[in-house]
Order: sequence, then structure tokens, then C-alpha cells
Amino acid sequence: MEEKVVIALGGNALGHSPEEQRAAVVYTSKSIADLVESGARVTICHGNGPQVGMIKKAMDTATNADESIPMMPFPECGAMSEGYIGYHLQSALHNELKSRNLDINVVSLVTQVLVDANDQSFNNPTKPIGNFMSKEEADKLAEKGISVVEDSGRGYRQVVASPMPVDIIEGQAIKKLVESGVVVIAGGGGGIPVVYQDGALVGVDAVIDKDSTSVRIAQTIDADKLIILTAVDKVAINFGKPDEKWLDKLTVDEARNYIQSKEFAEGSMLPKIKAAVDFAESKEGRKTLITSLEKAGDGLKGKTGTWIVK
Amino acid sequence: MEEKVVIALGGNALGHSPEEQRAAVVYTSKSIADLVESGARVTICHGNGPQVGMIKKAMDTATNADESIPMMPFPECGAMSEGYIGYHLQSALHNELKSRNLDINVVSLVTQVLVDANDQSFNNPTKPIGNFMSKEEADKLAEKGISVVEDSGRGYRQVVASPMPVDIIEGQAIKKLVESGVVVIAGGGGGIPVVYQDGALVGVDAVIDKDSTSVRIAQTIDADKLIILTAVDKVAINFGKPDEKWLDKLTVDEARNYIQSKEFAEGSMLPKIKAAVDFAESKEGRKTLITSLEKAGDGLKGKTGTWIVK
Repeated sequence: MEEKVVIALGGNALGHSPEEQRAAVVYTSKSIADLVESGARVTICHGNGPQVGMIKKAMDTATNADESIPMMPFPECGAMSEGYIGYHLQSALHNELKSRNLDINVVSLVTQVLVDANDQSFNNPTKPIGNFMSKEEADKLAEKGISVVEDSGRGYRQVVASPMPVDIIEGQAIKKLVESGVVVIAGGGGGIPVVYQDGALVGVDAVIDKDSTSVRIAQTIDADKLIILTAVDKVAINFGKPDEKWLDKLTVDEARNYIQSKEFAEGSMLPKIKAAVDFAESKEGRKTLITSLEKAGDGLKGKTGTWIVK
Repeated sequence: MEEKVVIALGGNALGHSPEEQRAAVVYTSKSIADLVESGARVTICHGNGPQVGMIKKAMDTATNADESIPMMPFPECGAMSEGYIGYHLQSALHNELKSRNLDINVVSLVTQVLVDANDQSFNNPTKPIGNFMSKEEADKLAEKGISVVEDSGRGYRQVVASPMPVDIIEGQAIKKLVESGVVVIAGGGGGIPVVYQDGALVGVDAVIDKDSTSVRIAQTIDADKLIILTAVDKVAINFGKPDEKWLDKLTVDEARNYIQSKEFAEGSMLPKIKAAVDFAESKEGRKTLITSLEKAGDGLKGKTGTWIVK
């Protein structure tokens, strides 16, 4: 059985318009096809920050301009972003694999990710989504129990929680596809966040960190390796200081110490390190690689990147 | 091996807003879950007419109102509709199956469907999509080679072709999932229409009939039965006349004769009969059932519906 590899790909690398995204996925697909060609069974979990933001803004703008257009809730916008990004990504990867004479199916799955309705993040939502609003509009939403904050003088915006992923609802489908040799795109944007309400799944306004979701997917399909892509080739300590040091390897214990001494920037490297640790310590033999898209292939061969191991 | 069944489900039954769709899929899921519970391996191919129309209109309206929102091409809107409808459908079906203690994954696949760039329908596009436009806007599009028609005094609209589906790009992934016991939603809206251009897949502005796509999916996964859902329980000849007759069975030859004598309404029962014939004659033992959603279970048991057989 070939090695199973999950790749966490940032949404920022996918551009802000269909044209930008079309170009970005062509570029991205070359590096991913390298991994597939080297024999890895690849699953991709991509972000969707700019894309779901654009879709939610477009739907809100359209609803305001034309009352015949229905209000589109945030989970539905997330589902739309999975279709929109998944289509471009699977098309580009299909094309790249085909140009290498590799007849391998690539497919995106609409993915729901279970979160805990009691996740503490729901008490303190901080992630802004959707359009800027007037105070009047904001007050109306607030009356409905929706969290709204004033955003640095530019108006009001809805804010949502960022709960941890608990379970991948379509996890077994992903596993079966990977085992049958299909390249899978799943958990796009961290997945559509859902909770059980009276025994039934219901979507909630929230954003799940896609690196955390990629860990859950990797665990669910029993992956060997998780690659968390970022802007740099390796993780550094003392970043930007005279004693800056780029790391080839980081044990789970070392990582924990560095986290405690606040080595890693919040909202940037810190969540990636946490996700890396989460996967590396979840089972014997599992390893996480943090590196850039361009170096992913070399990283898997052990030539570069930072490996987080137990 | 259990019987493989493909269901073609109309987009009109899914409602015009997220609330309507949420309610519709709960209702739809009960009948589909009956089939799953009876042991059928179910694949669902749904329409998206009202939904992709709403999304395209929303995106066009948003682009007009706010220039920071990029123009969204029609294939991308189709991909978004697959995410939007697929999410609701898989969520409702998951809930319904879970309530029956059936632990079966349900998942929607973003699906590209290959069409022939030389399909004759491209010479005569007739399917209106997107917003109404002024003559000025229409002329601008026409200059770019985009087909636009005047729509009964209400303004101008883009029209696109309705080519026949040639191949399901993600067909092998669908087949593998079905064989592993997953309920698959694929080819939503007839699929995202793509052509090969210099060896690479490219999306095109077109609408593929979802009944025709359901035939291609059924052939690809080697299904035993295709169920084409419609508003009536059975197919009739002499419909609405004193000698109206509801049919239990229709051979491929009989169907051809009735088609020739113009028994079936264009844009309504005719494409369904054609799709039914297409599947029934594609391989020994394949049968198509035309019936209503409510009667699908009884139809499979041979109690009602019209069976089209070779």
C-alpha cells in the first residue's frame, strides 16, 4: 500500500477572482502532481477565507439590491465555496496528471465537519464574515442573537466562532476513495460546520481552521503524513533575530516548549505547529511536514522542510 | 451485490431559497431513504435550474452593484450550485438514514461532464441564463461572441447551448464509492459542462440535461436501474384526451413509435422518455422507471410507475 498523505493548502494562495484562482490552481497542481507521481495517495484540504468572504459579500450585496434574491446563510456560502474552489482545483489537477499520462480520478467532496455546540469559541466569536453594515443593520442582527462588532471605523460586521473540528461526517467516503486510488479534495475551507440538534445535523455560522480539519481528515483515513503548506520552506525559532534558526526537525516535546515560550506567531505559525503536533502524536509513525508548496516534493524526500515527529 | 440504482431528481422540486430547499430535501430524503433501506445502492443526479439561476443572478447583481466583486462565469456558478444543493441533500439524507439507524455515508461530488465542442446545440443556443440586461449591455456581450436574445419584452438575456453529455470526468470515483456502499450525489445540474481544449479541460457556458447525465452516470457505474422522477406516477399516451391511457410498461420500440407520433411533450416528458430509452437499450437487463418521488419505492417493487425496457 502506498503512503497516504494529506496536504493542507491555504486559501490565500488561491486568489480573489475566478481568473486568479484558475491561474493559481494550475501552478499549485504541478507540485501536487509531483507527489502523486512519486506514488503518494494524496488528499487535499484547502482553505477558503478570501473565497467564502467574496461569495458571502456577493450574496449579501445581491440580497440588498434585489429582494427577490434570498439571504444566503454562511454555511451555505461555505458549501458554495467548496464547489467553486473544488471545481477549479480538480480540473487543474486532472489536466496536470493527464499531461503526465496518469489516468487518476480527482474529485472534490462536499464535506460537513462536526463541531461541539458547547465549544468555548462560541462564547467569544472573533472571525469577521460578510459585508460591512450600518449600525442600524447591525442592531437588527444583534436583536436576533447574532454577534456583531464594530470593525476599526469601517462599519459593523458579523463575527463567528472558530470551533475545533470533532468529526468528519463524510470521513468514511474519503477513506474509501483514497484507498481505491482517487485523489480527494475534502474539508474545503475547514468544512461546513455542523452540530447535532435533536439528533439531526444543522449548519452553524462558524469557521473551522483548515489545518485542524486536515488533522481530523488525516486521522480518519489513517494517513502516514500530513503536509501543512505555508509561505516559508521551514519553521524558524528566534524568527527575524540574529540567532534565528531554521529547523529540520522538531519533536512534539520541543514544539510544546517553544509554544510555551511564545516562539510562534498567533494566527500564523502557531496554529500550524499545534495542528502538526496534534497529528504527530496521534499514532505511532505519523509525521507532519511544514514547508512551502514549491518544496513539498523535496520535503517528502527529506531534503527540506521541518518535520514534526513524536 | 445489491442492485445499483440511479435516481434523476428535478431541480424544481428543490425550491427557490435556502429555507424552501431545506424543507424540500427533508421530504425528498424520506423516499430516497426507503430505497436505500430496501437494499438499493443509490446514486442521485439532481437538477439545478432554479438554483443556478438564482446564484448567477445574485453574482451578476452583486458585480453590477459593487465592482470589487468579480464576474462569476456560468460553469463556476454551476459548481457553486452543486455545493449548495449537495450540502442540503446529503445533510438531510444523512439525518433520515441516521434516524433509521443506518450508518451509511452520503456525499456529493463536484462533477465535470465532458461535452463535444462540436455538438450541434452550440450553433443554436436556446437556454436563457442569468439576469435580464439592457440592449446596451446585450450588445457588449454580443461583441464578445456571447449569444444574447430578447426575452418577450422583458429585456435581453444570455442564452446557452444544451449539449449532450459524452463522459463523466469523475465517473470512476463515483463507481468506486457506490461499490463501497456510499450513497453518492453526482452530476448535479447535469454536471459542469467541460470540453478538451489543447488537451486540457475547460468549462463552457452550457446547460446539460440532468436526465441525460443520469443515463451516462448509470452507464458508467453499470447500474441496473435508472429512476427518472417526474410530477406524475406513470407515463400516459393520449394525455388529457378521452382515450388517455396510463402505461405500466413501454418497450424501447413502442417508445420510439410514440416519439415519432409526437405523443410526448417537448421540454417535459419527451426528454425523459428519450433518456429512458437510451439507458434501457444500452445493455441487456437495464431498465428505466419513470414515476413520481412518492411512488419510487412502490415502483421499484413493480407496483406502479412506467417501466421502459428493451
